[in-house]
Amino acid sequence: MSLVDPVLQGLVDSLNAAYGLCLDDGRLEEWPEFFVDDCLYQVIARENVDNGFPAAVMYCDSKGMLADRVVALRRANVFPEHFSRHLISRAVLTAVDAHVVTAEASYAVLQTRNDGETRIYNAGKYVDRFLVEDGAAMLMSRTCVYDTHRIATLLATPI
Amino acid sequence: MSLVDPVLQGLVDSLNAAYGLCLDDGRLEEWPEFFVDDCLYQVIARENVDNGFPAAVMYCDSKGMLADRVVALRRANVFPEHFSRHLISRAVLTAVDAHVVTAEASYAVLQTRNDGETRIYNAGKYVDRFLVEDGAAMLMSRTCVYDTHRIATLLATPI
Amino acid sequence: MSLVDPVLQGLVDSLNAAYGLCLDDGRLEEWPEFFVDDCLYQVIARENVDNGFPAAVMYCDSKGMLADRVVALRRANVFPEHFSRHLISRAVLTAVDAHVVTAEASYAVLQTRNDGETRIYNAGKYVDRFLVEDGAAMLMSRTCVYDTHRIATLLATPI
Repeated sequence: MSLVDPVLQGLVDSLNAAYGLCLDDGRLEEWPEFFVDDCLYQVIARENVDNGFPAAVMYCDSKGMLADRVVALRRANVFPEHFSRHLISRAVLTAVDAHVVTAEASYAVLQTRNDGETRIYNAGKYVDRFLVEDGAAMLMSRTCVYDTHRIATLLATPI
Repeated sequence: MSLVDPVLQGLVDSLNAAYGLCLDDGRLEEWPEFFVDDCLYQVIARENVDNGFPAAVMYCDSKGMLADRVVALRRANVFPEHFSRHLISRAVLTAVDAHVVTAEASYAVLQTRNDGETRIYNAGKYVDRFLVEDGAAMLMSRTCVYDTHRIATLLATPI
Repeated sequence: MSLVDPVLQGLVDSLNAAYGLCLDDGRLEEWPEFFVDDCLYQVIARENVDNGFPAAVMYCDSKGMLADRVVALRRANVFPEHFSRHLISRAVLTAVDAHVVTAEASYAVLQTRNDGETRIYNAGKYVDRFLVEDGAAMLMSRTCVYDTHRIATLLATPI
């Protein structure tokens, strides 16, 4: 392994850490701010990816759709109260091209429901493209490819 | 996301990594050395924090109390033998003020008990203040805000 | 905590991140490439290490043996299909001596089997020696010391 640009590495890893805490703190309204306006966010089963079936269980192709999703979660959806907790690995930067960085990071989302126990809710990897400009990074696209194909509760909050 | 000072980021993340290994290795006597003399260490349920009830299940407000706690664990407490394993996320630095850094990091403590299986024992986040002087960091305060409100065994060893 | 060399820290952490993704992506043939030719890879129970019994459940003392192991896994072994997911902590560098870095990092390997649920398969720590030359790092030895002494399925794929 050779060293990648430590500044890019730090930007990507810091975004991922802040992204996880944002969701785990329940600050859903801040979540779209990690993305550029013309973004892509999708959640898709690893089995589907491996077999060439691109059907996603969640698909948003603009920041506006992400914001709508948050409104829906706040106003309309009914789901059992829970806490989430993201554990996100150091990213592997797979390509750097001008202002665009592609990277992958493994994640596990733990969930604590009313019974007070903490379980693994969803594990997988983020397959990402980041826009890096003026010393700051934003998500152009995030594809959550999940291993956990039996999901215990409604996929309510973002991964 | 803009880049924070990579030196401060590295100091905080390295302290957290060493902190986790220290506890997981069972080197309890070294644990107070991560803290300044006039420190605060507490463990508190997220539900309590969210509802404004500040009652902690563990509260130590000096390094001496941490050392006492270790002696008590070694001499007096009876608890089933187990291994612990900390997974700690990259920290999010929330403020930097002269020599004081405030930061948060998600954690999960896994536990392996006599049956040989590894379970999630406690997950949550560290809410921390670090003193940074002469190129070294120490904990001024660590508040472990835990999601897991049903704790399977006595909260014996530090989080 | 004082700051270690950020370049060495980055090399070790990036190798660990890439190592985890390589195995989780099922790119087993690339796995030996993380090691030097004259390497050591072993998997050993923490109980054995603590009690001075050095018997490993997996022991490979050359890159060729690692490659053989991969061939065996592909051709001969029968094990239930599953996905793995590594979560690896930031490394703690314990010694730096010319071109050799010793380090430890906690890990958890999650596993998703046919029922679609994700469980903790194996947790422990990597005890490693890295060769660092020409701005690149490789594994001279990796000892996986695992906490999880009841292993649900055959220890088929590398940790």
